[in-house]
Amino acid sequence: MFYTVLTRSQDSKQFRCCFKDNTMIEIKGGVCAPKGFLATGIRCGIKPGSQKKDLALIYSQKSCNAAAVFTNNKVKAASIRLSQEHIADGKLRAIIANSGNANACTGREGMDAARRMAQAASGILSIEPSQVAVASTGVIGVPLPVDLIEKNACLLKASLRDDEQGHSDALEAIMTTDTRRKEIAVEIEIGGKPVRIGAMAKGSGMIHPNMATMLAFITTDAAITGGALDSSLRHAVKRSFNRLTVDGDTSTNDMAVILANGEAMNKEQITINNEHSEMINGKSDYDIFSGALEHVCASLARMMARDGEGATKLVTVTVTGAGSEDTAQALAKSVASSSLVKAACFGADANWGRVLCAMGYASASMPGADFDPEKTSVSFKSRAGEVQVCRDGGPVSFSEEKAKLILLEEEVEIFISLREGNGTASVWGCDLTYDYVKINGDYRS
Amino acid sequence: MFYTVLTRSQDSKQFRCCFKDNTMIEIKGGVCAPKGFLATGIRCGIKPGSQKKDLALIYSQKSCNAAAVFTNNKVKAASIRLSQEHIADGKLRAIIANSGNANACTGREGMDAARRMAQAASGILSIEPSQVAVASTGVIGVPLPVDLIEKNACLLKASLRDDEQGHSDALEAIMTTDTRRKEIAVEIEIGGKPVRIGAMAKGSGMIHPNMATMLAFITTDAAITGGALDSSLRHAVKRSFNRLTVDGDTSTNDMAVILANGEAMNKEQITINNEHSEMINGKSDYDIFSGALEHVCASLARMMARDGEGATKLVTVTVTGAGSEDTAQALAKSVASSSLVKAACFGADANWGRVLCAMGYASASMPGADFDPEKTSVSFKSRAGEVQVCRDGGPVSFSEEKAKLILLEEEVEIFISLREGNGTASVWGCDLTYDYVKINGDYRS
Repeated sequence: MFYTVLTRSQDSKQFRCCFKDNTMIEIKGGVCAPKGFLATGIRCGIKPGSQKKDLALIYSQKSCNAAAVFTNNKVKAASIRLSQEHIADGKLRAIIANSGNANACTGREGMDAARRMAQAASGILSIEPSQVAVASTGVIGVPLPVDLIEKNACLLKASLRDDEQGHSDALEAIMTTDTRRKEIAVEIEIGGKPVRIGAMAKGSGMIHPNMATMLAFITTDAAITGGALDSSLRHAVKRSFNRLTVDGDTSTNDMAVILANGEAMNKEQITINNEHSEMINGKSDYDIFSGALEHVCASLARMMARDGEGATKLVTVTVTGAGSEDTAQALAKSVASSSLVKAACFGADANWGRVLCAMGYASASMPGADFDPEKTSVSFKSRAGEVQVCRDGGPVSFSEEKAKLILLEEEVEIFISLREGNGTASVWGCDLTYDYVKINGDYRS
Repeated sequence: MFYTVLTRSQDSKQFRCCFKDNTMIEIKGGVCAPKGFLATGIRCGIKPGSQKKDLALIYSQKSCNAAAVFTNNKVKAASIRLSQEHIADGKLRAIIANSGNANACTGREGMDAARRMAQAASGILSIEPSQVAVASTGVIGVPLPVDLIEKNACLLKASLRDDEQGHSDALEAIMTTDTRRKEIAVEIEIGGKPVRIGAMAKGSGMIHPNMATMLAFITTDAAITGGALDSSLRHAVKRSFNRLTVDGDTSTNDMAVILANGEAMNKEQITINNEHSEMINGKSDYDIFSGALEHVCASLARMMARDGEGATKLVTVTVTGAGSEDTAQALAKSVASSSLVKAACFGADANWGRVLCAMGYASASMPGADFDPEKTSVSFKSRAGEVQVCRDGGPVSFSEEKAKLILLEEEVEIFISLREGNGTASVWGCDLTYDYVKINGDYRS
């Protein structure tokens, strides 16, 4: 990240003058923060016996360039397959999403239901169904009661708002076991104009196929070409959602989608090769936009890891000095995914042997993800301090008491140094707890 | 498996006459059941403050052909690296093993300690150090107190026995968190002579890097060439220990080793191409031996899965009708490894969506492991009955009550049919429980 991030509590004059240094500010409003976007969330009854909202709509008043990344699971929900069709031309204007039912493993009827969802949204908004992305999250293998969505379409339209409340209602309607809100909006400057990116996500666990799923909906008023938007989203996802692990399961319903409506009126459209853009501190408009989008996605990813099902803490695993960024990521992901490492974090046990072990089997199974155990060092870090526990692959004496204090914090980092090259990556995960087992041992009943 | 397995309670006359039908019997004696093998286990004090045995020795009175399979973890314990050296010529006569310390991540001193372990055994047995395999299991990153082993070497020699007690003592000395004994011995007939295979294993979890590890020590009195022994062991391991998953972690210390001393005096050495062997029901001597060895290894693998850390049940995942055996294995392993599936088994929740989901992401990440979700059916089975929960990728109505009763059993099977080809494989795993988190959250303290 090359940004200094200021929060909205800071003097606005101060951050304005920082723009030239690629400063961005965090603002309120979520997906409604960018100009020209409306949102809402209502209860239509998909979650039987619950008073919770379960249907969300996000809408742009103008047509948008759009980009999306979908689950690579071979078993894809109907909503995913339909949204893949609709994004094919790079244009979308709305996202309709329900919680309480994943509409996955539901056969031909499931595909019909997804189409009817898109039609319900297109009808009230007077746009083409192909301009609507559809997302679902909830239980697998149960037919989606799409008639409830159709019946409530008018209410959905009537409740659309362009303010923070609209964003907030939509966010509540996509949450399932989430215990925390995942939302962010930022403002940057492109070509002298303020440009905003707003986002919401749900997911408490990388993915919980029967209930959760990771969904991220992002809006921006940047004027940006479809190609640049797609490239920027893929880069950001690689460094955020793809570096998040809670339980290693990849859902049938994962989706990250971004709509860009151009309402910020930045003079020149952002393009990948930036031929028109003035360089600010060596950064093009594309670099500035992509950096901000990465910050948005990475923030959501950290929020999801922290809210992992049953988790008591956020565990960041950082690998530095790897032969490449990909190697760093692969090794860090293996450590963050290891049930044994996760259980040790829960118990605040400085069990560094498990860290090396998890790197060792990742390396064995991934060609190229090589490292030399005898050049590997490991430290544990948190607000409470830092302690090195392994140097050059072997033990160093350290205070178990101090290590325990460090690992008892709510946010801890496992810091691994390899002395092989310049590859660095951080992966976010959480601990493995009794509550994870409880939540997932009996979700459906 | 092409064997009918009889237990020792059955009339010995009856099973003798069944030999021609490739019958084998399970016998007592473990690794001491084959002729010419001795074993023992003692306490030498590696586990401080514990009265448990921690040092084991297995020894053949005659020289042996030997074969072994080691962990593919990039981080390998000193014992693994030394044993790889010693097996290089295909000859071993003894195995010395300790519990309480893994001798992994212990640097150059660790390698010296492993060599001293081999020397201690070779000294008392008057054989070359290179004839000794060394195995360790326990905590990582703590220097091995090898002087305790050297001091107790004479006691080790004095207590060697050729009977079941010797086997039993050795087995106890390699156990760590194991709550059940993993042992088996079988007798088959080769070239008209009775041939025995005996084995012990430890491991409650596929691997628990900081404490457990999977170790399997196998003896046989078969006369068999080194090449045939190696080939037979690799085949058996592929279909047994490699189809076992508890937590997905692969230890730094895993080892399966077999010694064959030829004392059964079967007339012709067993060879891979069997040019000398009389075919029994279309099976060569090599086939008969390999089938028995596979039975031995698979039995140990099931025992380990059932004894997975904190596990309340054995979960067998069977995939049939896959395009190939490898595809069946990859898909079954993904299902058996999924934290969500494992937690659902703990909660006796017939959550079949998680089964399809786990197959889906395995397929996406492994080229060739393809299947058609819309031709996939899933059933749950146990002693309490069988219930189909998914047909052709979609839901079927079933009794949740009946499914719950089936899943409450101690041994359950998730049975998946793909209608793609003839590939079939079973993978053994266990459920994910509160106790797994408890055991691994604070192992070291």
